[in-house]
Amino acid sequence: MFDLIAFDADDTLWHTEELYVGTQDRFKQLLAPYHSAEWIDQKLYATEMRNLRVFGYGVKGFALSMIETAIELTEGRISGAEIQGLIDLAREMLAADVRLLDHVAETVAALAERYPLMIITKGDLFDQETKVARSGLGPLFKHVEIVSDKTEASYAALLARHQVAPERFLMVGNSLRSDVLPVVKLGAKAVHIPYHLTWAHELISETQVGEGRYLTLDHVGLLPALLEEFGQT
Amino acid sequence: MFDLIAFDADDTLWHTEELYVGTQDRFKQLLAPYHSAEWIDQKLYATEMRNLRVFGYGVKGFALSMIETAIELTEGRISGAEIQGLIDLAREMLAADVRLLDHVAETVAALAERYPLMIITKGDLFDQETKVARSGLGPLFKHVEIVSDKTEASYAALLARHQVAPERFLMVGNSLRSDVLPVVKLGAKAVHIPYHLTWAHELISETQVGEGRYLTLDHVGLLPALLEEFGQT
Repeated sequence: MFDLIAFDADDTLWHTEELYVGTQDRFKQLLAPYHSAEWIDQKLYATEMRNLRVFGYGVKGFALSMIETAIELTEGRISGAEIQGLIDLAREMLAADVRLLDHVAETVAALAERYPLMIITKGDLFDQETKVARSGLGPLFKHVEIVSDKTEASYAALLARHQVAPERFLMVGNSLRSDVLPVVKLGAKAVHIPYHLTWAHELISETQVGEGRYLTLDHVGLLPALLEEFGQT
Repeated sequence: MFDLIAFDADDTLWHTEELYVGTQDRFKQLLAPYHSAEWIDQKLYATEMRNLRVFGYGVKGFALSMIETAIELTEGRISGAEIQGLIDLAREMLAADVRLLDHVAETVAALAERYPLMIITKGDLFDQETKVARSGLGPLFKHVEIVSDKTEASYAALLARHQVAPERFLMVGNSLRSDVLPVVKLGAKAVHIPYHLTWAHELISETQVGEGRYLTLDHVGLLPALLEEFGQT
């Protein structure tokens, strides 16, 4: 049925967004003397969006966006020690334990026996590579592809590179915007496994994807049974 | 003679180190009221080396290292506006025009007609991708590989991925440490084209590489003639 099954990594294989949320909570505490939590969130998000086209995705760009936002929101009054604290938060994120989601370890191990598996993830190259290594899952994946963005064009380039026809490709991930929409547009299949937190940038409405063009599972442990069903139809 | 010829990008295809040097000059001006230029250089380099294993290569990690060094060297007295200035310097580096080295455009175009060409570069994924796009050279390269580091293992993985035997592979670049040493260790060939500036981290002595195991050219325009010679022997 599938020649290649690819998994998103952050918040599909291991927890990531909660690291960002935790860091943002501490960021809001730092700036609480100056502004409301809502306003800080809004300004940080606006800075991140403006910086995406320059810094790309990942923790390092996020750190630079936090520093810029802190300077702006304190009108330059933030201290050197506080900015050092923000860089230390980023360093903690980069060094944080890789915590697998429930069912990931056994499901990926089982699927690896029957299908070539791939990781497709975006973010900082070095950070994502070390997370794959620290996750212990590396040997189960035949390919690891770290891309600067997940668009129809980037998926098409990956399928061409690996010589896989779209209809023989399945993508599994937590983001409708990055893991589902561009994949179904190519004519490939996608399984959406929502995570309990979603970065605002990754939110899109289900109607944008088109109902019925992808399947949703509660957790990755249900994927093998779904693949069995696919095989029988 | 060769099934694949790969080029380093920064300071082999286009100028990069002078952007870092220019930014460091402005960094030293900023901190001139506090310390001597030599001491600032030493401290920044030490911070960069300590941060490499966390941030990896590239402009974003360099920016974070500049900020940390500035906070340390001013004992936290650097102002928010000055730190914003450092982030703006990084943003300028990321947006700088891609200036090709002499002879690159015509030499790469000529070689592309006879050999499959590849770029192998390290640094921030997003930054390197946009530089390839802005260079105008993209269509001449069959493959672009952006890696987190250039080691014997990373070259071996690339050769395996592209199914090229080491003895049929040629690497061309300005860094003995990154473009020559790991390549000749694998049994592949390397051509060293020194650039007039070299980051201290990339400096190694020629004896570490082993004399006679690679060739040195003054500029890339001499590469086609060298390949002709290889072909005739």
